[in-house]
Formats: sequence, structure tokens, C-alpha cells
Amino acid sequence: MLEIVLIALIAAPTLGMLVVAYLIWSIKRESIGTSRMEEIASYIQEGSNAFLKRELKTILYFAIVSTVVLLLCLWPSWEIGFGFLLGAFISFLAITLGMSTAVKANVRTANAARTLPGKAVKMAFRGGGVIGLSIMSLNVICIIALYYLFGVGPKNPEALRLLLGFGLGTDVTALFAQLGGGIYTKGADVGADLVGKVEAKIPEDDPRNPAVIADLVGDNVGDCAGRGADLFSSGSDNLIAAMILGLMFTSKYGWVAVLFPLLTRAIDIIGTIVGLFVLREKSKNPLTALNLSFLTTGLICLLGFYAISTWVMNDLRLFFCLSLGLLTAIIVSLVTQYYTGAGRGPVKNIADASKRGAAITVMTGFSYGLESTALLVITVVVTALASYFLAGGGMIGLYGLVATGMGITAMKGIIMASDTFGPIVDNADGIVEMSGISDEVGGSIEVLDAVGNVTKAITKGYAMGCALLTSLVLLFTYVYGAGLTSIDLTKVPVIAGVFIGGMLPFLFSALAIRAVGKASSQMVEEVRRQFKEIPGLLEGKAKPDYSTCVDISTKNALKEMVAPTFVSIITPIVAGFALGVEALGGLLIATTTTGALLAILMINAGGAMDNAKKYIEAGHFGGKGTPTHAAAVIGDTYGDPLKDTAGPSLHILIKLVNLVALTFIPLFLLYSLL
Amino acid sequence: MLEIVLIALIAAPTLGMLVVAYLIWSIKRESIGTSRMEEIASYIQEGSNAFLKRELKTILYFAIVSTVVLLLCLWPSWEIGFGFLLGAFISFLAITLGMSTAVKANVRTANAARTLPGKAVKMAFRGGGVIGLSIMSLNVICIIALYYLFGVGPKNPEALRLLLGFGLGTDVTALFAQLGGGIYTKGADVGADLVGKVEAKIPEDDPRNPAVIADLVGDNVGDCAGRGADLFSSGSDNLIAAMILGLMFTSKYGWVAVLFPLLTRAIDIIGTIVGLFVLREKSKNPLTALNLSFLTTGLICLLGFYAISTWVMNDLRLFFCLSLGLLTAIIVSLVTQYYTGAGRGPVKNIADASKRGAAITVMTGFSYGLESTALLVITVVVTALASYFLAGGGMIGLYGLVATGMGITAMKGIIMASDTFGPIVDNADGIVEMSGISDEVGGSIEVLDAVGNVTKAITKGYAMGCALLTSLVLLFTYVYGAGLTSIDLTKVPVIAGVFIGGMLPFLFSALAIRAVGKASSQMVEEVRRQFKEIPGLLEGKAKPDYSTCVDISTKNALKEMVAPTFVSIITPIVAGFALGVEALGGLLIATTTTGALLAILMINAGGAMDNAKKYIEAGHFGGKGTPTHAAAVIGDTYGDPLKDTAGPSLHILIKLVNLVALTFIPLFLLYSLL
Repeated sequence: MLEIVLIALIAAPTLGMLVVAYLIWSIKRESIGTSRMEEIASYIQEGSNAFLKRELKTILYFAIVSTVVLLLCLWPSWEIGFGFLLGAFISFLAITLGMSTAVKANVRTANAARTLPGKAVKMAFRGGGVIGLSIMSLNVICIIALYYLFGVGPKNPEALRLLLGFGLGTDVTALFAQLGGGIYTKGADVGADLVGKVEAKIPEDDPRNPAVIADLVGDNVGDCAGRGADLFSSGSDNLIAAMILGLMFTSKYGWVAVLFPLLTRAIDIIGTIVGLFVLREKSKNPLTALNLSFLTTGLICLLGFYAISTWVMNDLRLFFCLSLGLLTAIIVSLVTQYYTGAGRGPVKNIADASKRGAAITVMTGFSYGLESTALLVITVVVTALASYFLAGGGMIGLYGLVATGMGITAMKGIIMASDTFGPIVDNADGIVEMSGISDEVGGSIEVLDAVGNVTKAITKGYAMGCALLTSLVLLFTYVYGAGLTSIDLTKVPVIAGVFIGGMLPFLFSALAIRAVGKASSQMVEEVRRQFKEIPGLLEGKAKPDYSTCVDISTKNALKEMVAPTFVSIITPIVAGFALGVEALGGLLIATTTTGALLAILMINAGGAMDNAKKYIEAGHFGGKGTPTHAAAVIGDTYGDPLKDTAGPSLHILIKLVNLVALTFIPLFLLYSLL
Repeated sequence: MLEIVLIALIAAPTLGMLVVAYLIWSIKRESIGTSRMEEIASYIQEGSNAFLKRELKTILYFAIVSTVVLLLCLWPSWEIGFGFLLGAFISFLAITLGMSTAVKANVRTANAARTLPGKAVKMAFRGGGVIGLSIMSLNVICIIALYYLFGVGPKNPEALRLLLGFGLGTDVTALFAQLGGGIYTKGADVGADLVGKVEAKIPEDDPRNPAVIADLVGDNVGDCAGRGADLFSSGSDNLIAAMILGLMFTSKYGWVAVLFPLLTRAIDIIGTIVGLFVLREKSKNPLTALNLSFLTTGLICLLGFYAISTWVMNDLRLFFCLSLGLLTAIIVSLVTQYYTGAGRGPVKNIADASKRGAAITVMTGFSYGLESTALLVITVVVTALASYFLAGGGMIGLYGLVATGMGITAMKGIIMASDTFGPIVDNADGIVEMSGISDEVGGSIEVLDAVGNVTKAITKGYAMGCALLTSLVLLFTYVYGAGLTSIDLTKVPVIAGVFIGGMLPFLFSALAIRAVGKASSQMVEEVRRQFKEIPGLLEGKAKPDYSTCVDISTKNALKEMVAPTFVSIITPIVAGFALGVEALGGLLIATTTTGALLAILMINAGGAMDNAKKYIEAGHFGGKGTPTHAAAVIGDTYGDPLKDTAGPSLHILIKLVNLVALTFIPLFLLYSLL
């Protein structure tokens, strides 16, 4: 049996990467359209490459320094340092693959829309499939490789630290990609809008706006690279924590208890591949087509989960827990869609509130964001309790929680594909606009853009769910790793830990939002300068200097992410030494709780205000150009850094603090003995 | 010794109430100025009385139903039900005394400003002194009365439940006063501004605006009654929890361990009385004069604390803990002043950000609010740890925490007096404006108004500190009362409790903010209607119908506070039955943590945006009438319900959930045995 399992574990991700290669090839061979389209696409590609290059350099510096620190601190254990380097770079590889494909797919999607709208949908979805499949497959491949090469396993517990290091590496890359990417995209977006739309009164995606390329690049940087790295690290953290906890259950299930998480992931890969190819060119309604893909993937996962639960694990309860995870993913998506979906109650009410001025817009948007935490928290709580008791409570209940975590992350490949669908069609829309072929394309790309907004919102909610369940599993890994028998809230130092942990996401968000403010201010200055100094620019006779704007965004993004990164790494370390491992446990759960709550608040408030603006632009309450629309635009802009910078970065914060704590356990324990 | 202590405990609050009577008499005998001033003042008084009357009716209904429920649930124990009724009404009595004096002091302050600005300061401060002294003295008087009449004490532990019921009653009145008051004041304020200032372009406090009286009444309802009831309940909760915990230390300190908290309160009363009379008419700078009063009160408390720690308790460590509490109160005020003070970095930066539009204003304001949690949390954590270890750690460390809690609440009388100074001078400013005597008064009242804004901001920060420390003490009382040996965060139900508890303040705030949105919308409709239907109103030839606006505010405030109140009472009860007492402990600490964090965020973000607007109005960045000012006004309006409705109500939420949990412990334990 074990042999078959191992073969499956190697075959599935290998197949996944072969499909990735095929997808890239099949996209590249498509035509890119007119020379003007090619020119604009090349700007976006250059901007993306510049960002990736500089991001790589930053990660390189940071990873080398961190590795040296890790090696020195944890000497003679080299495993964490090595795993860290590997994790950081494999994660970077996955987002590079994904993003470079996305910026190739965008222009081809625009071109496909000239002939067949259905083909555009397929192109964009398959473009997103590259990162979706990569993050799943590379995860499993690396962990299997570490397993074979270094003998990770119950006979060699020290080597498990390789996995821990790997998880830490993926989280750091994720934080850089999501936080840096979030600052990049919103700095450019807000800056471009404030001068372009508001001051110069030129439309969105107008080629005369010097910041327009930075804005288009930003969509890829934030939604594709950022979210991809986030889900990559959720996936690996979840796998790793589940495998480490699996060690506790080898007496019950045998050695396969450790491999079980990997096995579910192999099924997910197969499900994702089928889901990707189910979508055909002929499908009329793009949202229905995407939903069919989701459904197919979900169904295959469900069947596979039943198979492994009964044949490999001989425990049907695990199937129930896995299915519960899938169900939770669906509920989380539905709740997110309710609170941010165009035409639903909250979005309509925010649009209606805009009639009474921008203050009432943001007040209403903020209050819906606050409210949306309730349903999501109840969902997660019920899920956690149900899986715990379904599996039988006590120790084995913990394994149920692990299985539910694997269930909720099962869909991440296909959801990531639909997420990257967003920036691809968004970019395609920009290319259509800028190359003057909108008449040729008609409204088909705009329809896709609206669909992309829905999928992006769903992914953010889903990513939050994944991060939350992952953090809970990590917390139990921490408790197990630190040898704690309890984390007692009646002890004053533990309460102190809870307060500091609760505060951390607030401080982190403050720094992230401020960074967008700074980056956008510089962008505003630069765009104003170009409008003033380049003669004939506003008349469309001269070309703007796109690359300076791209440069400003890149530099700011990488500079401004230093402070929040530093805070999130140093806080658990200092608390661990000053307050001890038990109080640190209190800190971890508090950071997880308030981080999740704040993230939900910000993502949903921002998403709802974004769609309230779009709802008005669709002609409700007077449409564009009215004071009501102006109020909604202010709400949308305020929500931008909340939903695209601070909110999604908090997902990574809550995983990162847990992993940092986990990594430094030996030092904390050593110190407490001194 | 015990006799002397008991005499002191009766003498101090009796003296306090005598001084209250003197203050009321001394204010009443002053002249109220012109007949126009008398007319306007009478509108405000009528509005206030209408609110108080309807509030009393609401409290009456609620209290009777609750008492019946409490009696039925806890039968044959009648103590909690009786205590509850008493607490609810004494608290209401205190705010009625305070508010009816405040609406008498406002017109007299305006009149005093016509002759001697220093006299106006004294009048406003003494007017505030009535509620400041009342909340302290009535607290002590009631608890002493319960003590004598029913033999509350270690020999009669069941009677301690009287105190518990008393605390619960004060909290319910506080929630009604603060939440209802917050909805009242901000519904009126936002509604008056949106039509008056923005649409009709008439100045603030213009008599042509139909909502202006509701706005002026609202200042008293929110700042005087709301905050007064909040501090009244913090004071009694703190006293009661400290006395119950004191039972654990009678073996060490003797019976006086239970009376020690009351004794510190007696000292505070003396300190407050002296502090109130230190302020003279001759003092030139009003802020310096107020600071001198604070300093005097602080100094007397310090001396008194030293005396009782050495002579009565024979434990100098208690003096250190008490002093630490005083110090914390000062630090909390300083941090609040930094983040919200006009001319400080954050306020200047928000004003500067307004140059780039309202979206950047609210983004910057929100990020400073988030950031401000860091320093305050660190202050509270360091205080809690320091007092715990100063007193010797372990069980006795807990008594240190209790002492620090008594220290931080020591200043509440004088701080409450300076807080009510705010609405009194604000109202005086309005009366001056509306009765057309501004030339006579010059700018002296506006100076006082600015001072009032500072004192109001300080009080909100201080009230947060009090509520937080009180909740911590209550938490330990809960642990002791439920017989818990630990609250273990590694148990899944406890984690579920933490998530639900963390979410509660988010949901509560959503409902509170939404309520202001609804109330202000109705106000907007009414003001627009009057401008349209009453001929000659905008030209100043006809009188608006003030009372309809007052009526709208009153009705909405009392209707809209039902949902949040219900949620905050029912959640701990349901959680206690469904998840058990240990998980409920997790819920309590999580509600305390996120409630405090959210409250700090909202109070400071709102306060900073308010003062950024005022900073621009003072002539910076172009001053009034510029787009920069318009952007800042949007930020200020957005911040209004955050800082005056949701934020301060959260203080009460965190105390209330703890007390509800404490009250229902016997039922939870009974149910878990079934």
C-alpha cells in the first residue's frame, strides 16, 4: 500500500507540472494582434520583469541574512536555514512562472476577444491555471524531495525541521509578494486615479496617463503574484503542520498518517487539472463556465477523499472532516459574495448612502465590513467544533481539524486560476482601451472584467479561510512542539501576550495603509510633473514616460514593506524571550483572531465600496458624473489599500508569527532555563 | 481601626453630596443674561428633559423585565434582581443630576463670559463637578448602605450577590446612556451638518437650522450623561470586583482587605473636592487652570494612598501599585493627546493629506487610529505586569492588580468634571452664537470650546483605560467565581469562545455605526422638509420647528440601541450554556481585547480627524472654503460615530459581558451537570 501511495505522490505533481508546461506553450503560440497591442503589452511585461527582478534581489538579500542568522542561532542544526532558502526560492519560482504567463496571456486574451469571446475566457482562465497548478505541484514536489533526500520522517525527527524552514521561507516570500505587491498596485492605482480621473478628467486606462502602465503591472503584482504566494505558503504551512501533527497518530493509522495530507493534495492536483480543461470555448456565460469548473474540481476531490479515507486510512470520519472543509470553502465564498457582490443588499445600501455624501458612504461601507465578520467567524467556529467532534474529540479530534484544513485548501488551485483570471482580463481591457480597438471588441471584455472582480473577491475571502484554518493547525503544532500541556489565560503573562498579539495586526495594518498613502503621494507628484513638463501630453501628441512611474512604484513597494515585515518577525521573538513560551501561545492565538477579524473587515468593506461605485457607474442613482458617484469614488479609493494591501497581507502575518514562534522554540526553552 | 475606617467611609461621600448640593445652588443663583439667551437655554432644557424622561421609561421597562427574568432564573436568590434595580436607578439618578445641572450651567457660562472669562471657566468646571462628584459619592454610599442593611461581608457571602446585581444595573444604564446618547448626538450632529453646513451653506449653530437644538442637546446627552454613566459603572464594577476578590485576602490583611477599595475611593472624593475648588476666577489660561486642579487631586490621592497603605494595610507595595495606576492614567492621557491633539504630528499629517482628497484623509486618519493602539496596549501590558510582580506575583499579585485598578480610577471625578466642561462650553458657544451676543463675548468662549475638545478626548482615552483595567479585574472575579483553575487555550471549545468573543465588538460596532447612519438620514429628510415647507426660514424671518428634530433624535436613539444591547447580553449567555464556563472565559478575554483595540482605534481616528478639520479651519493649508477643508470635513463626519457612538459604547460592552457572565455562573454550572 505504501508503495502505491508514494508513486501517486510523485505522479500527480509531475503531471501537474507537465500540464503547466503545456498551458504555457499553448498560450504562447496564440497571436498577439496588432503592433500597437504588442507595444503596450511589452510595456507591461517590462514593468513586471523589473518588479520581479528587484523583488528577487530583495528576497535574496533578506534570505541570505536570515539564513546566516538562523544558522548561527540554531547551530548545529542547519536544517531550518537550508529549508528556509529553498522555500523562499521555490515560492518565488512559482509566482515568476505564474506572473510571466499572466502578462503573456493578457494581450492574447484581448486579441481572442476580437474574434470569439468564449476563447478569451478560456485563454484567461488557462493563463491563471499556470499559477494555480504550479503552487500546488511545486509544494508537493519539494516536500517529497526533502522527504527522500534527507529521510524526513518519524525515524529522523530532526529532519522535520527542514520542512519547518521550508514553510518559513514560503511565508517570507509571500509577505514580500503580497505586502510589496499590495503597496505597488494601490500606490499606482490611487495615484493614477487621483490625478488622471479626478484632476485631468481623462478616463481610466487612458494611454495619456503616465501611471497607467504601473497600474496595469500592479494588477498582476498584487492579485497574481501576491495572492499566489499567499496560497502557496498556506498550502505548504498546512501540509507541514499536518505532517508534523501526523506523527502523533502513527500508532493509530501507521506511517501513512504523515503522508495522508500529501495524498489529499495529490487528489486536489488531479481535480484542478480536470477542472481547468472542462471549460470550453463554446461556453456562453463566463460565470457559469467558471462555476462548472469549480464544481468538477470539487466533485473529483470529494470522490478522491472518499477513496483514500476508506481504502488507505480506513476511517470514514476523515472523509466527513475533509468534506466539511470543502463545504466551508463554499460557505465562505457565498458570504463574501453576499457582502461584496454587485446588486446585493450591502452594496446597494452603500450606493444609496452615497446620495448623502462621501462621509455616509464610508460610514456605511465600514459598518458592513465590521458586520461581515459575524457570519464568517460563526462559520469557522462551527466548522472547527464540528470537525473536532466529528473525529471524536480529544487528541483524535485534532486530526479531524487537520483533515478539515486539508479540505478547505483543496480548491486552492482552481480558485487561484480564477483569481488570476481577474488581472489578465483587467489588463486585456486596458490593452483594448489603449490600443483603440474597443469598437472591434464590443462590450465582451468589460463583462469579463466584472466576472474577474467577483472571482478576485471570492479568492480573498477564501484565502482568509485557508490562512485561518492553517494558523489554527500551526498553533497546535506550536503547542506540541513547545511541549505545552496548556496555555492558561488566568496567568497574567499570558494575558499580556494576548494583548500584544491582539495589537500586532492593528500596528501592521497601520504601517501598510500608511505605505500606500506615501507611495500614492509620490505618484501624484510625478504624474502632475509629467502633465506639466511634457508638452502635448494631454492632447495625445506626446508619449508619457511610463517607466519612471513604474520605477517609483517598484522602489516604494520594496522600501515601505521593511517596517511591517520587521515588526511581524521581531514581535513573537521578543515576546517568546520576555514572556516565555506559554504567553507566546497566547500571543499567537490573539494575533490569529484579531488578524482574521481585521482582514475580513478590510477586505469586505473595501470590496463592497468598490462594487458600490461600479453599481452607480452602471447607471443607478444617476450614474457617472453625479455627486453621488463622486462620493462613491472616495469610498472606493479609501477601500483600496484596505482590501488589496493591508487585508490580504494580514493572512500572511498570522501564518508568519506562528511559524516564527515554532522555529524559535528551542531557543526560548534554552533561555528560560538560564 | 475598623471603626475609624467605617466612619471615614460614611463621611467622605456624604461630604461629596453636600458639595454637590452647594455647587448646584451656587450655579442656580447666577444670572442667565438676556431674554433671548433664556429662550434658547429653555429649548435645550426641554430637549434634555424629553430625552431623560424617555430614557427613564426605557430603562424602567427594561429593568422590570430583566429583574423578573433574573428573579425567575436565579430563584430563590433575590439579591441580584434587587441589586440590579437599585444600580440601574442610582446610575440614572447620577446622570440626571449631572445633566440637569449642565444645561443650567451652559447659559450662565455664556453670560459670565460677557463680563469675566475666568468666571466662565469656573462656572463650566463646577457645573461638570456635579456629575464628577455624584458618580463617586453615590457609588460609595450605595455600597456602604447595602453593606449595613444586608450584612454584605465574608460572614454572609450570598449577600455579595447584591453588589453583583448593583454592578449589572449600572452597566445596563450606562449602555443605554452611552449608546443611546451616542446615537442621539451623532444622528443630530451629522444630520445638522449635512444639510445646514454642506447644502444650505449656513454656519454651525445657526438658529435657522431646525436640527441645531437637537445637536446642542446631543452634546449633553453623549458627553455628560453617556460618559458619566460609563465612569459610574466602571467605578462600581471596579469596587465590587475588588471587594469580592478582597475576600481571598482577608487571611493576610484581615477584614479590611474587603474595605480597602472603598477606602481609596473615599480619598479620591476628598481629592476631587479640593481639586474642584482650587480653580479660581482669576486664572488666566484655562488649560493651565484645569491642569492645576488635576495635579492637586492627584497629589492628595497620592498622600492618602500612602497613608492607608502604611497605616491601615501595613503593606507599602499597595502604595506602589496604587501610584502605578495614577501614573498609567497620566500616560494614557498623554498618548491620547499626542494622537488627537491639534498641532501634533498625526493631526498635521491628516490635515496635509486632505490636500490630496477625502479618500487620503480617511486613509491617513484610519491608519493613525490603528497605530495608536500600539502605545496604549504596551502601557496597559507593562502596567499589568508591573503591578502583578510589584505586589509579589501569584495570588497576591492579583491584589496588586486590583490596587492598580483602584489607582487608575482614582481621578475619575475630576476628569469627569473636565469632560462635562466640554458640552457646557460647547452649548455656551451655541447660545452666544444664536442669541447674537458674539461681539460682546469676543473669542473667549471659542478658546474654551477648544479646551473642551482636549478634555473630552482625554476623558475618552481615560475611560477606556478604566474600563480595560476594570474588565481585567472582573475577569479574575469570574475565574474565582466559576471555580476555574485554568482557561486553557489549547482546548478547541475555548478557541471557539475566543473567536466569538473577538467578533462581538465588531458586530456591536457595526450596529452602532449603522444606527447613526439611519438616524442622521431621517434628520436630513426632516431638515430638508422644513427648509422647503416653512416659508422665510432660510431668510431668518420664520422660526424652525426645533422640537420635531429633537423628537426624531430621541426616538431613533432609543429604538436603535435595542439590537446592540440584545446582542451584547445574549452572546455570553448562549456561549456559557453551549460551550461551558471555561470557553466563556476565553470569550470574555477576547471581547475585552478586541473591544479595547477597536475602541482605541475609533476614538483616536475620529478625534484626530476632528482636530485635523479644526486645524485647517484655524487657517492652515488654505483654511475654510477650500477643497482641502471639504476633504477634512468628510473625514470628521466619518469619524463622528466612531469616536462618539461605537468607540465609547465598547467600554461598556466589555464590562457588561464580564458582568453578565459573572451573574449567570450558577446557571451555567447547573446546566453542565444536567
